[in-house]
Amino acid sequence: MVRNVIGLDIGGSKINGIVYDGKNIVRELTIISPRNLEDFKYSVVKLLQFLAAGRNIQAMGVGVAGIVGIKGQIIHSPNMKFLDGVNLTKFFQSTGVKKIEIENDANCFTLAEGILGKGRGLKNFVGITLGTGIGGGIIINKKLHRGAHNSAGEAGHVMADFKYDSEHYFQKARDKKDYKKMGEILGILFANLYNVLDTELIVLGGSVALSHHAKFLHSALQNTKMHLVNKQIKPKIAVSNLKNSGSLGAALLCKG
Amino acid sequence: MVRNVIGLDIGGSKINGIVYDGKNIVRELTIISPRNLEDFKYSVVKLLQFLAAGRNIQAMGVGVAGIVGIKGQIIHSPNMKFLDGVNLTKFFQSTGVKKIEIENDANCFTLAEGILGKGRGLKNFVGITLGTGIGGGIIINKKLHRGAHNSAGEAGHVMADFKYDSEHYFQKARDKKDYKKMGEILGILFANLYNVLDTELIVLGGSVALSHHAKFLHSALQNTKMHLVNKQIKPKIAVSNLKNSGSLGAALLCKG
Repeated sequence: MVRNVIGLDIGGSKINGIVYDGKNIVRELTIISPRNLEDFKYSVVKLLQFLAAGRNIQAMGVGVAGIVGIKGQIIHSPNMKFLDGVNLTKFFQSTGVKKIEIENDANCFTLAEGILGKGRGLKNFVGITLGTGIGGGIIINKKLHRGAHNSAGEAGHVMADFKYDSEHYFQKARDKKDYKKMGEILGILFANLYNVLDTELIVLGGSVALSHHAKFLHSALQNTKMHLVNKQIKPKIAVSNLKNSGSLGAALLCKG
Repeated sequence: MVRNVIGLDIGGSKINGIVYDGKNIVRELTIISPRNLEDFKYSVVKLLQFLAAGRNIQAMGVGVAGIVGIKGQIIHSPNMKFLDGVNLTKFFQSTGVKKIEIENDANCFTLAEGILGKGRGLKNFVGITLGTGIGGGIIINKKLHRGAHNSAGEAGHVMADFKYDSEHYFQKARDKKDYKKMGEILGILFANLYNVLDTELIVLGGSVALSHHAKFLHSALQNTKMHLVNKQIKPKIAVSNLKNSGSLGAALLCKG
């Protein structure tokens, strides 16, 4: 790990930035996500100035809620549509940092969990973020499975029925604070992931998981078990206890 | 590849057996699947005698429609319930062949497609069998992804709605010959696989795919596209043209 890396976690509601020295988070700031590209660029530059002040920043890792192309262009960000088509690598290079890594935010969360959190030592696990939307990252043989277009892990877009995806029903349940329904929806999603991937663990992160897991986790686990085809699987669902896991994972993109 | 390997494909409707000499299928027989364990054992022994007659059989690979434990025990076979709990490795050892490999049938199909069929040279693809049920096998980084309990790839058990899985609706559509509905169901299933795995290709096999693909493939592809979150993905769905792909994949388990 190089010293003094910036990690940014760009979500639909908040942007969290850290400076990570390879062992500790030595500076941290969270701002509200801007609603258009101009404000976004302005705010992010200010955030970076705050984080970098007085430090020699060697690299920056960025996690973004959306589908990130292999060259750092945003292919689709459902909750920050103003980023669609924007090449974030170029934008961040224009701020002066040379080494830039851009990745999907749930992939960053999952990387952090694998290196420092609940997924440490596991060969196969899945990270799921529950926040503005549902994100996912898949670890197979200790490596992030990115897929052919860097868009693997879009678990929230697994269809929940013939009309809508899991994220649609999750957002409705969240807005109504219907945690029984949330347990049901997540149970089906988790069972689908177990049935397809036969993974060892699902680690949850994101604001909804961190704040409200006590209200839906038991029900989600019961619903997961109900829909498993291999009844010998004892599904395991854990909640992250890493601080700033998204931006930490983004910083860890620059490892080595 | 050792010479003269038997490959068996044990499905819910038929059992296909081959002798594979490392290059060609040199003998082949298909029988109707027995409905109880006693008949199963009797018929399979007869099938093996036919295949082995006059040949020095060095190994045998077996693909079974069901969840196969790591020691060759059948954990759950929805369409051959009489096999549940049976240790097939022990049974086949009792027939005299020393080297036995047992694997899920869709995994065998997928292995054969990767080595000799439509998946050749690809890093990531998914094999799906459409027959008595829906089976699946996942290739990641050119290797079969078996998961923590050897039950990864159970794509047919991805839930199609809050009540039933894809296999349930597939079987209903197949029995009614409702190929429009089949395209819709498979489109959702394929989109789910693309959204989670961002795979390069889905290869279809199994009796329903081989006989009826012309009636549902176009519709399945349109439905897949409709539900993809990454619109830059051009989903590719191919139909196998390998002969005896299931038993060939089973024989290939004994490669090396």
